[in-house]
Amino acid sequence: MKAAPHRRSDYRWFMEVPTRWADNDVYGHVNNAAYYGFFDTAVNRYLIDKARLDIHHGAQIGLVVHTSCDYFAPLAFPQVLDIGLRADRVGKSSVSYGLGVFAKAADTASAQGGFVHVYVDRKARKPMPLSDALRRAVLAIKGGKG
Amino acid sequence: MKAAPHRRSDYRWFMEVPTRWADNDVYGHVNNAAYYGFFDTAVNRYLIDKARLDIHHGAQIGLVVHTSCDYFAPLAFPQVLDIGLRADRVGKSSVSYGLGVFAKAADTASAQGGFVHVYVDRKARKPMPLSDALRRAVLAIKGGKG
Amino acid sequence: MKAAPHRRSDYRWFMEVPTRWADNDVYGHVNNAAYYGFFDTAVNRYLIDKARLDIHHGAQIGLVVHTSCDYFAPLAFPQVLDIGLRADRVGKSSVSYGLGVFAKAADTASAQGGFVHVYVDRKARKPMPLSDALRRAVLAIKGGKG
Amino acid sequence: MKAAPHRRSDYRWFMEVPTRWADNDVYGHVNNAAYYGFFDTAVNRYLIDKARLDIHHGAQIGLVVHTSCDYFAPLAFPQVLDIGLRADRVGKSSVSYGLGVFAKAADTASAQGGFVHVYVDRKARKPMPLSDALRRAVLAIKGGKG
Repeated sequence: MKAAPHRRSDYRWFMEVPTRWADNDVYGHVNNAAYYGFFDTAVNRYLIDKARLDIHHGAQIGLVVHTSCDYFAPLAFPQVLDIGLRADRVGKSSVSYGLGVFAKAADTASAQGGFVHVYVDRKARKPMPLSDALRRAVLAIKGGKG
Repeated sequence: MKAAPHRRSDYRWFMEVPTRWADNDVYGHVNNAAYYGFFDTAVNRYLIDKARLDIHHGAQIGLVVHTSCDYFAPLAFPQVLDIGLRADRVGKSSVSYGLGVFAKAADTASAQGGFVHVYVDRKARKPMPLSDALRRAVLAIKGGKG
Repeated sequence: MKAAPHRRSDYRWFMEVPTRWADNDVYGHVNNAAYYGFFDTAVNRYLIDKARLDIHHGAQIGLVVHTSCDYFAPLAFPQVLDIGLRADRVGKSSVSYGLGVFAKAADTASAQGGFVHVYVDRKARKPMPLSDALRRAVLAIKGGKG
Repeated sequence: MKAAPHRRSDYRWFMEVPTRWADNDVYGHVNNAAYYGFFDTAVNRYLIDKARLDIHHGAQIGLVVHTSCDYFAPLAFPQVLDIGLRADRVGKSSVSYGLGVFAKAADTASAQGGFVHVYVDRKARKPMPLSDALRRAVLAIKGGKG
């Protein structure tokens, strides 16, 4: 019942993340928790670049309410990864992103995950509807599901 | 459809994890990826203590094939957390663990997650049946599901 | 010319830091960078507890301008560490802290480091004299040097 | 007495390190400890590429005995950094590296550090003379000092 690995064509936007020394754990491969650092980096980088998300002072910020990851094949330092991103579901104030982690030459994901952001007012931390800029940016990477 | 937060009584073993400066992200709370560091720490600490898992030289090691987390309430540095652990499903060579993250005074989880280990031969990295020591240790924290 | 390891009596305040899975690197011991996470955690925890440093909203924050560490003996996960703290030099707007990292049963440091904070206005990020509360707190752990 | 910031021409080899979400701390800039992760990554990547250092199975590995860093100007996520590397001193079984951290467009270091490796036998963890491949690789990036 485990999900099948995605292909690169299942994603809409990519960024390179070179692995670092500390991504490897004592067993010599990228630690399972490190993948979530790649997801944070990709989602926020996309929103900063495409929706001018201001992580320091903006009125609306994204809080993470759910994450998950399936690991299919090991990765390691040193290696350059491509992180694929798409929006699986776009709600009024939340977005479910899908992320794929690809080794440089591979078309099949080494790992893939889910990441749900609820967009809130920075001060009150209450959900607020996606700003127009955010909505446009996430609709531009809308993937197949939902 | 989001899972309801668990109580402390839903878990079978606990360890304290004090938060650290770097667990907080730019929004001032424990980063979503840091929780997976707590999960790694709790699962491995339990297996080292109770099943003498030898992470340096042992013939059998646990590889992570799936993780997930639901986040209900923010946590921060400085704060001391209790991580609750249980085994949800015990297979021939794999175990699905459930983990709860509790603030010190709270009976309701701030976050809860899943963590699936496949136990493999260290060299070949092929699944092998749980050693007797591992099986005894995980059955001792068998929780309600499956 | 390498510094000799300190003793516990060289420090004025201690906090426990249990190691975590991800502190170990591929060589099986606590990674050199992880020690700086212990230093951040100890200095800030001390100032939050003793000088009510408000890392989220306070007008004055500490920026790190220099750090260093000598490593004498390996540490690993799982292991509980005691981090010793003292103030080596207290200036008008800066403090040089000394930190020692001790294995639970050891009187001799496994590693020791330096950590220099300049206290600045949160908004302008310009140095400002230590608040009375900060000055009292750091003078209370004044060590032997300078 | 603080060191003056280096220029790019003070270093002999460079690698790009894009910052990640978790490099930022609660004050909105790259955390002081994260720089040591950049140092680990650059030194090991250089040795793996140029001296075929085998971090998984090689007979000789580098243990870190001293590190330090001076911080001159803040960095943040998202930003791409260039890490400069040179060998300041090459001993029989140890090397003192110098590292500079540069923002993409800057000729002046935002931070610079020192990193001392002692090369040891992987099993006994006793110092052993630098292999010919390691010695050639570090002499190729020999900098001005000592």
